[in-house]
Amino acid sequence: MATINQKIVLASRPVGMVSESNFRLVEEEVRELNEGEVLFRAQYLSVDPYMRGRMNDTKSYADPVGIGEVMTGEIIGPVESSKNPRYKEGDIVAGRVGWQKYAISDGKGLRKIKPSSVPISTSLGVLGMPGLTAYFGLLDVCQAKEGDTVVVSGAAGAVGSVVGQIAKIKGCRVVGIAGSDDKLNWITEELGFDAGINYKTSENITEELKNHCPQGVNCYFDNVGGPITDAVFPLLALNSHIAICGQISMYNSEKGEKGPRLLWNLIVKRATIQGFLVFDYFDRFSEAMPELTEWVASGKIKYRENVIDGLENAPRAFIGLFKGENTGKQLVRIS
Amino acid sequence: MATINQKIVLASRPVGMVSESNFRLVEEEVRELNEGEVLFRAQYLSVDPYMRGRMNDTKSYADPVGIGEVMTGEIIGPVESSKNPRYKEGDIVAGRVGWQKYAISDGKGLRKIKPSSVPISTSLGVLGMPGLTAYFGLLDVCQAKEGDTVVVSGAAGAVGSVVGQIAKIKGCRVVGIAGSDDKLNWITEELGFDAGINYKTSENITEELKNHCPQGVNCYFDNVGGPITDAVFPLLALNSHIAICGQISMYNSEKGEKGPRLLWNLIVKRATIQGFLVFDYFDRFSEAMPELTEWVASGKIKYRENVIDGLENAPRAFIGLFKGENTGKQLVRIS
Repeated sequence: MATINQKIVLASRPVGMVSESNFRLVEEEVRELNEGEVLFRAQYLSVDPYMRGRMNDTKSYADPVGIGEVMTGEIIGPVESSKNPRYKEGDIVAGRVGWQKYAISDGKGLRKIKPSSVPISTSLGVLGMPGLTAYFGLLDVCQAKEGDTVVVSGAAGAVGSVVGQIAKIKGCRVVGIAGSDDKLNWITEELGFDAGINYKTSENITEELKNHCPQGVNCYFDNVGGPITDAVFPLLALNSHIAICGQISMYNSEKGEKGPRLLWNLIVKRATIQGFLVFDYFDRFSEAMPELTEWVASGKIKYRENVIDGLENAPRAFIGLFKGENTGKQLVRIS
Repeated sequence: MATINQKIVLASRPVGMVSESNFRLVEEEVRELNEGEVLFRAQYLSVDPYMRGRMNDTKSYADPVGIGEVMTGEIIGPVESSKNPRYKEGDIVAGRVGWQKYAISDGKGLRKIKPSSVPISTSLGVLGMPGLTAYFGLLDVCQAKEGDTVVVSGAAGAVGSVVGQIAKIKGCRVVGIAGSDDKLNWITEELGFDAGINYKTSENITEELKNHCPQGVNCYFDNVGGPITDAVFPLLALNSHIAICGQISMYNSEKGEKGPRLLWNLIVKRATIQGFLVFDYFDRFSEAMPELTEWVASGKIKYRENVIDGLENAPRAFIGLFKGENTGKQLVRIS
């Protein structure tokens, strides 16, 4: 009997907030492997905020997903069969092959995951793209160093939670901004952040930050943008660095949003803002991975996963990212 | 008979657009010199946009000017008398001693101007702070290199006109944005810019820029901010650099202005925005000055001065900066 693949395709382009109706689950037979190909099965799918941009019909740093095409994304799981000498049945591989249960790959771009003491799902989170994003964004773009005050928005997310913990390892003072008291409790009580601010209940984020950052903000790692980022600007320290990793607060905006003009602050503080993509650091992943792996293995970096079961629920898991429903890495467990 | 000094003091703080009523001319006797002091006379006063910030009662990168205090600014002229062994009568010196006809200094922070083939007024412009600002902003902050496309706003001003010419020397394609056809004629016909855009008459600055910058914008040197800067953002090239030198379009705003939120562009283009102050490059002035001097002496950098006579007219000259009245460096000739 033929194996049936399930995949989530883009049914329509969202206008404003993405909804489940923008996705469609389709089934199809898995075809025979050609020479050099490998078939693997998804145990986990990663859903990430950046995917919202791919749903728009505009060229960003990558091409948009076409209508009817499988949603872009990374899955991880075992090789089911292989006609590629580099992979054998049972190997665990991760690949950016989209939201689907089975994938056929020629092996290019696949990562083989070595067996280790940590669950394979971490390869989509703390030991995958989000962890590497945190590492390079904080250490390279923000240039965080001992004694700095680091502020991170989206602090309880897959990236932000790792940013804060690496900053603590490096001897920084760390303040996280997140959207619930539960998230703040997690980052301060379990992850060791020095302070947290609930942007949903704060009456004045800048004033709260000022109390927590008496020396100003040397590094701001921005995952969200919008009014939260506006609130950080007045507290920038001299020669401070802002890393623009994400702007999740605006991904579902129907039209461009307006905000205060803030560039003048950059002169006053001789500050630098830099946008970055983790893929630009590809050549240095091998420098970061052993360090991240050691920190996770030794418990210096803790992580949490928010798991939703069933590929059919991937759209709901994805939409939850924009509602702040996840603490830590949002995953979809498929089988 | 005692020598009478004239000086322009801050009479009141402007609310919104600065006006002549915010200044007052006062006279006072020049006192006797103490040991170690030098008296010098202003031939020229430099008026510069940054001074607008000093008129507000807010701490920026420097303290505000107090009510009744002399306006901050740099003058240049001959030493009249000296009890400082480093200066003798007739020496030409420049110093940031404020808007006044005579100044007594202990010599600290004075620059002695060597006799040369160029007029001494250039030490307040192309061979002074504006020229150095252009040099470091373009070469260090923007990291302009051969083959880059450079866009500069305020292109016919004291800084912008030098930015474009240094960029041409370095083998860049240069597009200037300015506010009159006369200014554009000057920068393209005389200074060698490749193209110019009149932001006051352009129907779509972004579209015009796109035509002039087919490879995108690698370096944007920003003197003005606001909608002109918004228009450049969509054209940023990969790994582009924006130097924030000034934001003159907003210096007279009564309350903070709003504009489109643009930080997302920085991720897409992995672009960097950096605010800078030329004074942070003080230790490297001696590296830049010989090069600038040679370029001016050899005619590779041309300059223009907009001269208004009379210290009493300094407020009018200053206000003219915000109306775009100057082409090149705005100076006040005092005696």
